[in-house]
Amino acid sequence: MTTRREHDLLGDKDVPADAYWGVHTARARENFPITGTTIAAYPHLVEALAAVKEAAARANAELGLLEPRIADAICAACREIREGALHGEFVVDVIQGGAGTSTNMNANEVIANRALELLGHAKGDYHVLHPNEHVNLGQSTNDAYPTAVNVATIIAVRELSESMVVLEKAFAAKAVEFHDVLKMGRTQLQDAVPMTLGQEFGTYAVMLGEDRQRLNEAVALLHEINLGATAIGTGLNAAPGYAEAACRHLREITGLPVVTAADLVEATQDCGAFVHLSGVLKRIAVKLSKSCNDLRLLSSGPRAGLNEINLPPVQAGSSIMPGKINPVIPEVVNQVAFEVIGNDVTVTMAAEAGQLQLNAFEPIILHSLSESITHLGAACRTLATKCVAGITANVDVMRAYVENSIGLVTALNPSIGYAAATEIAKEALATGRGVAELVVEKGLIPAEELARLLRPETLARAN
Amino acid sequence: MTTRREHDLLGDKDVPADAYWGVHTARARENFPITGTTIAAYPHLVEALAAVKEAAARANAELGLLEPRIADAICAACREIREGALHGEFVVDVIQGGAGTSTNMNANEVIANRALELLGHAKGDYHVLHPNEHVNLGQSTNDAYPTAVNVATIIAVRELSESMVVLEKAFAAKAVEFHDVLKMGRTQLQDAVPMTLGQEFGTYAVMLGEDRQRLNEAVALLHEINLGATAIGTGLNAAPGYAEAACRHLREITGLPVVTAADLVEATQDCGAFVHLSGVLKRIAVKLSKSCNDLRLLSSGPRAGLNEINLPPVQAGSSIMPGKINPVIPEVVNQVAFEVIGNDVTVTMAAEAGQLQLNAFEPIILHSLSESITHLGAACRTLATKCVAGITANVDVMRAYVENSIGLVTALNPSIGYAAATEIAKEALATGRGVAELVVEKGLIPAEELARLLRPETLARAN
Amino acid sequence: MTTRREHDLLGDKDVPADAYWGVHTARARENFPITGTTIAAYPHLVEALAAVKEAAARANAELGLLEPRIADAICAACREIREGALHGEFVVDVIQGGAGTSTNMNANEVIANRALELLGHAKGDYHVLHPNEHVNLGQSTNDAYPTAVNVATIIAVRELSESMVVLEKAFAAKAVEFHDVLKMGRTQLQDAVPMTLGQEFGTYAVMLGEDRQRLNEAVALLHEINLGATAIGTGLNAAPGYAEAACRHLREITGLPVVTAADLVEATQDCGAFVHLSGVLKRIAVKLSKSCNDLRLLSSGPRAGLNEINLPPVQAGSSIMPGKINPVIPEVVNQVAFEVIGNDVTVTMAAEAGQLQLNAFEPIILHSLSESITHLGAACRTLATKCVAGITANVDVMRAYVENSIGLVTALNPSIGYAAATEIAKEALATGRGVAELVVEKGLIPAEELARLLRPETLARAN
Amino acid sequence: MTTRREHDLLGDKDVPADAYWGVHTARARENFPITGTTIAAYPHLVEALAAVKEAAARANAELGLLEPRIADAICAACREIREGALHGEFVVDVIQGGAGTSTNMNANEVIANRALELLGHAKGDYHVLHPNEHVNLGQSTNDAYPTAVNVATIIAVRELSESMVVLEKAFAAKAVEFHDVLKMGRTQLQDAVPMTLGQEFGTYAVMLGEDRQRLNEAVALLHEINLGATAIGTGLNAAPGYAEAACRHLREITGLPVVTAADLVEATQDCGAFVHLSGVLKRIAVKLSKSCNDLRLLSSGPRAGLNEINLPPVQAGSSIMPGKINPVIPEVVNQVAFEVIGNDVTVTMAAEAGQLQLNAFEPIILHSLSESITHLGAACRTLATKCVAGITANVDVMRAYVENSIGLVTALNPSIGYAAATEIAKEALATGRGVAELVVEKGLIPAEELARLLRPETLARAN
Repeated sequence: MTTRREHDLLGDKDVPADAYWGVHTARARENFPITGTTIAAYPHLVEALAAVKEAAARANAELGLLEPRIADAICAACREIREGALHGEFVVDVIQGGAGTSTNMNANEVIANRALELLGHAKGDYHVLHPNEHVNLGQSTNDAYPTAVNVATIIAVRELSESMVVLEKAFAAKAVEFHDVLKMGRTQLQDAVPMTLGQEFGTYAVMLGEDRQRLNEAVALLHEINLGATAIGTGLNAAPGYAEAACRHLREITGLPVVTAADLVEATQDCGAFVHLSGVLKRIAVKLSKSCNDLRLLSSGPRAGLNEINLPPVQAGSSIMPGKINPVIPEVVNQVAFEVIGNDVTVTMAAEAGQLQLNAFEPIILHSLSESITHLGAACRTLATKCVAGITANVDVMRAYVENSIGLVTALNPSIGYAAATEIAKEALATGRGVAELVVEKGLIPAEELARLLRPETLARAN
Repeated sequence: MTTRREHDLLGDKDVPADAYWGVHTARARENFPITGTTIAAYPHLVEALAAVKEAAARANAELGLLEPRIADAICAACREIREGALHGEFVVDVIQGGAGTSTNMNANEVIANRALELLGHAKGDYHVLHPNEHVNLGQSTNDAYPTAVNVATIIAVRELSESMVVLEKAFAAKAVEFHDVLKMGRTQLQDAVPMTLGQEFGTYAVMLGEDRQRLNEAVALLHEINLGATAIGTGLNAAPGYAEAACRHLREITGLPVVTAADLVEATQDCGAFVHLSGVLKRIAVKLSKSCNDLRLLSSGPRAGLNEINLPPVQAGSSIMPGKINPVIPEVVNQVAFEVIGNDVTVTMAAEAGQLQLNAFEPIILHSLSESITHLGAACRTLATKCVAGITANVDVMRAYVENSIGLVTALNPSIGYAAATEIAKEALATGRGVAELVVEKGLIPAEELARLLRPETLARAN
Repeated sequence: MTTRREHDLLGDKDVPADAYWGVHTARARENFPITGTTIAAYPHLVEALAAVKEAAARANAELGLLEPRIADAICAACREIREGALHGEFVVDVIQGGAGTSTNMNANEVIANRALELLGHAKGDYHVLHPNEHVNLGQSTNDAYPTAVNVATIIAVRELSESMVVLEKAFAAKAVEFHDVLKMGRTQLQDAVPMTLGQEFGTYAVMLGEDRQRLNEAVALLHEINLGATAIGTGLNAAPGYAEAACRHLREITGLPVVTAADLVEATQDCGAFVHLSGVLKRIAVKLSKSCNDLRLLSSGPRAGLNEINLPPVQAGSSIMPGKINPVIPEVVNQVAFEVIGNDVTVTMAAEAGQLQLNAFEPIILHSLSESITHLGAACRTLATKCVAGITANVDVMRAYVENSIGLVTALNPSIGYAAATEIAKEALATGRGVAELVVEKGLIPAEELARLLRPETLARAN
Repeated sequence: MTTRREHDLLGDKDVPADAYWGVHTARARENFPITGTTIAAYPHLVEALAAVKEAAARANAELGLLEPRIADAICAACREIREGALHGEFVVDVIQGGAGTSTNMNANEVIANRALELLGHAKGDYHVLHPNEHVNLGQSTNDAYPTAVNVATIIAVRELSESMVVLEKAFAAKAVEFHDVLKMGRTQLQDAVPMTLGQEFGTYAVMLGEDRQRLNEAVALLHEINLGATAIGTGLNAAPGYAEAACRHLREITGLPVVTAADLVEATQDCGAFVHLSGVLKRIAVKLSKSCNDLRLLSSGPRAGLNEINLPPVQAGSSIMPGKINPVIPEVVNQVAFEVIGNDVTVTMAAEAGQLQLNAFEPIILHSLSESITHLGAACRTLATKCVAGITANVDVMRAYVENSIGLVTALNPSIGYAAATEIAKEALATGRGVAELVVEKGLIPAEELARLLRPETLARAN
């Protein structure tokens, strides 16, 4: 392998001649052989880093701190990355020490070397254009990296939000389709009172809609960035006007309404917005998991279960039991939910462990959030298209449950009182007989009146 | 013990003659001997239950479903409870099965028996005024209980919010007091660049302010109630107009702007707002814990630690080491934070475990949230009054750190470049000499110019 | 209130004249107004503290460091406490800063004052017998407190273990009772292949037995104590021979085979045994919760659920639905499990947060473990006596499920192959017909042979 | 792309002609587009699956259920996979629904097709050798998959254990190197009493050793397998003698002392051993994180921190602050610890969610455990080689802390009593003077006697 020699605080080090990354990245690769997954796995982050670097270069040029030629080269390199180029050069491990310094330096080096090429220079000619002194000018890892994480996360959350809409619509369509399908409602897994299957599916749609509102509120907090804070929020080494200009350019480049935080010292050390977002992702996971638990329960059987609905078969369910179909799609969603809930604990611990002017543990926060967001999005889309859209109802099974139920007696409370109704229920349970026949037999309510009261459709009136 | 005999679904049972609670409560006491703590430990809940029962009675009276005489007696009993009476009669365990049914029945029975007394009847004369048929009229545990939990939680959160304001003000006052105290900022526990102690304390105040905003947003979600939903949200057995009337009366009674949820089936099974609130409480805990970690670190020493600030001594620190003072107040706050973070997992699991039309596990959700809210409030007030208010600064220690620091060289990047600055830093570290003398000695920057650049006050300019 | 004046590092302070506790306790009460629950709520800890103090006094007397008269008085006071006296004098909050110092000093003060009384002196005559110089002699909070926590926890775990045996036996008795009850096994909530209800209940017994073994292994680790370590494990101020003697006396007093840790510096800062125990408690919680989920599912209905078993009714299930019986006992066990799982996170965070030579957060670890152990014990006993013991089987329902099932076809794989069996299953599902009749109709297996193969009793042969 | 047509329960489907996987795998790929990571990322699992399939084939051949020719071909294919071939054919997503069915079928199909090739047949000629009827013979996913997970996990844990030994030795070597380096011990971050740096590092070694013992105990539980249980533990379709033979062959193939579980119904649904292992991994994470917190604290500075030790520089610490070196290796270990702690919650939830005869969520359990084990191993090796091995001590800094400390006065308790010592400590703190000079000045102890008492080496006597 041909190499070029680079130099840093620790001395000389050879890097592959064709690598766009340099000595800092090379050391980081050796230092963090943890997961084997590189930050190239986060395209949103790679592109957001390029956006931040371009915004900084533009601001520095505007303030006369960077020669136009240098700034233009940097911006051109950043644009290439934002369009998908050079992602494979982002080679540091996703779990890394150093508050994101290695990721930031990876970006600085790749951009510097690509800009050098564009200027007709060889990679490594840092006297012309330097990763720290030009690409990172006016920045610190401690403002550039969190800003990029925010931008990347905003975009990832938008995609999640769109996936949630797909699922919400799938549930809502079933709510319409099953509007008139009568069934027993259950509380504490015991037969309760009648409702419609449409109401049941409508609930899932409403839940998702509420969760999505919370998600949008949570992501709004990420639009506050600390670019210009430099090392600890005092803005040391950032020129007057830089923070404002860099933020303005980042708005233009990304199209996102980012704003500079009011208190940069606070913003540089605070992970509250990430903890908050993680909490909302956990909320979504909890609700998705609950909905999938319900789908699995309602489709249990086919003969020794509730058997109220059928999930579309998507694969053979068993390597030994012929004909068995399992609820594999809800099951995979449950598992994603458990992962997200665990990730929330990871984010919590990492945020709590931050000390003084910086949180050194942002890389694991980014990693956990990124996994949670991406996997939740995949889970929503999969659930919508592979499962919910194809659900069918066993209308007769459900109606038989209602007609045979003891819970119907609840509707007679207003007519015969809780105590008498209780006696009817006990007798029905003990004898296996129906509530209606017992009420009539005992002369508590005339038959026609009873028929009116127990018309299931009225019992399940939607609110 | 004299007793009176009561009757329920399971048969007869004797209860103490002077107990306001009845047979349902008696069975629940036997069924749930878990913690030994009764719901009387949640006065907000007891009073909220009374508020809900009064609202329901008023609505039922208004709709002609309850005789005025009966309704008035119920309302009078509820008012007594809301004013602090009979709390000791709420004797079911805080951790209980049954989605709150035992708590709801405990309330129904206490109110019924007190109302009977007010009407001149003996306790247990339920043919006159019945716990289920009159006090619980138009309700189910599944709407009355969550509504009461919401009301109780809103009030508890208000108190927490006030405690947070106390702490926020204590931090803000210190930010002003320490506005001109120069110190080294630290990232990753390594010396970084200068800042002021005022900025450090200001950060804690800003964090708390942001958390408080999130808390207020979270609690706003709890104003949506499901009263009128009855068993599963279909409103079975609730008269037309009842939901609207009960909500209106509850608004009047509590002064809280509660509204009826748009989809009662969804609202009856959804614990999303609790998960969300718990997530925000966790966020507050994370930030409080981080702040306390910092206070303990900055006050470490007195001679073999950072020794930048002094926490006021509040008790002798050691049973063996004379004169030792420990940061016991931040330590207790850390512990409350760990408890809140654990409680969040409990709430998460309980919410996820809800099935179909109801979450049976609301009692543990209430218990966990209630502990978290109350303990966080106590922690904030204690931290403010017993610790933050009395913190003093070791100004000379901090100034010496700044003057002796290598991090000062960062400010010379714009003048001499990152590479040359790195060499200075390395030499200073290796020789133990100062950054300034080395720069002058090497003729990199004239002495006066250097003095200007390194004026610490400019380095720590607040943003 | 009459008072006496005491003195400490911070100056003078009046305490109630009749209080056995003194100035250190008085300050701690003011400093930690967090939960309102005092350590008197942990009788095992109070008694363990007394045992440790008695062991120390005996060792000190043996080494000639404590006058026999003083030592005897201390021992007498300790014995009184261990027999149940003076628990109400342990008044510091269960959540407290300071690594247990306040609890330790509370014990030192109560013991000193009671010993003074026994010697005929007034409370507060510390020149005769001093909380620090005599009761705490040779000790630090950092060894006396963790040793007491270990002793208390060992005893609490024994009680839990006994409660688990009660539940295990209840499940095992049902396994015998239901040995011949045939039913469908289910995987992923879908009908699988036949088994017996006895096998199902036997599983719960076996699980508990395994968990109990793990619990016993975990608690064995707590028998390693650090008494004699004093402040940080170097044994400063403890006389030669003291650690050995104190441990020997503690063994005698408690009857527990405690041993001195091999590395006292390590033992003084390490919370590994608590994290381990908490992990095992979590394991127990997970399994108990799973078992209760199953019980609730199998008893769902009565008419629109699986309805395979009946849980004994223990209270009316609903305030609105007459005759409804809910699975409230399993539900309360689920909630305890969720609490224990949350507590595990609290313990984890507290253990991780320990710094350098001591973990300052042992009070919350003790609190969380204590709650988990006690509540799990109560849950096991309640589940055994109020639920499992009274469970009955709906034998006919279960047999009908088996006979009607498609899963039976699995047993024909060896005869007709997976592919042909799949076709039969598909046809049975589509037509609603039985597996057996289809096989015979298609001439795949002669009727008598088929009857032999599908004899359910052979299908469910226990392994 | 050329394809071949395969068939399953759902109908026909084309798969790539050169793929070793077949229709079941093809459907699973479409059904679970969640993480993009395939099970090929778990080489231990892929190889363990091959070992299980080979053991089953050998057992079936031995029992006369499989033609020798067929069995041999299967075994040969399995051996190739165990030697590293065909891993790229394991293409189903690591997070998948279905209790591992897709992973099991992926293995069955790859093995079948490779065996067909070895027999001279084309891929897909399943009438000769069928994934279900031959490769999966006598098995179910529900026994084959968990058995493979156990085997894979045992091997992964062995590697972790070896990595822990490397770290343990690195700490132990430093304990020896620093045996005579005197320093202040700290409790609650406040100066306590003297100790040696060797004691401090020795503690980390001892902790790891204890954790490793717990790990070995936990993994021992995984040697109990359920092969032969088939679908739910009743062994349906497994021939008499099969379970014993398969287990025996698996022992031979893997060299692991696996045994068949005593109760296969229990073993098939129980995830207790995984929860237990995860709890122990969490314990390791907690302790590692605590140790890294300490390393970061002790190396804080270099000028405004404790500065007791130096971590070896492994990369430049900052993109803006020249010369800054950060503790990036401990930081990355902290982050792995947070991940492991979060994964433990995921495992807990997945285990709790298991229902009736099977836990459908084993794939996420495997995924979480696998990540935790692998990342912890990498973290231990990295910490040992990149950090601990190169740590140096600032001996003079530490000695100065000791000599200047107030905590020294603790050693005078036995001579002058706690109360007098407290007064000395207070005066030293207030005046900034030394403890020794004050004691002599006040004539409390003669100078020579004092020198003897305060000889730091005796103070820090190791136990």
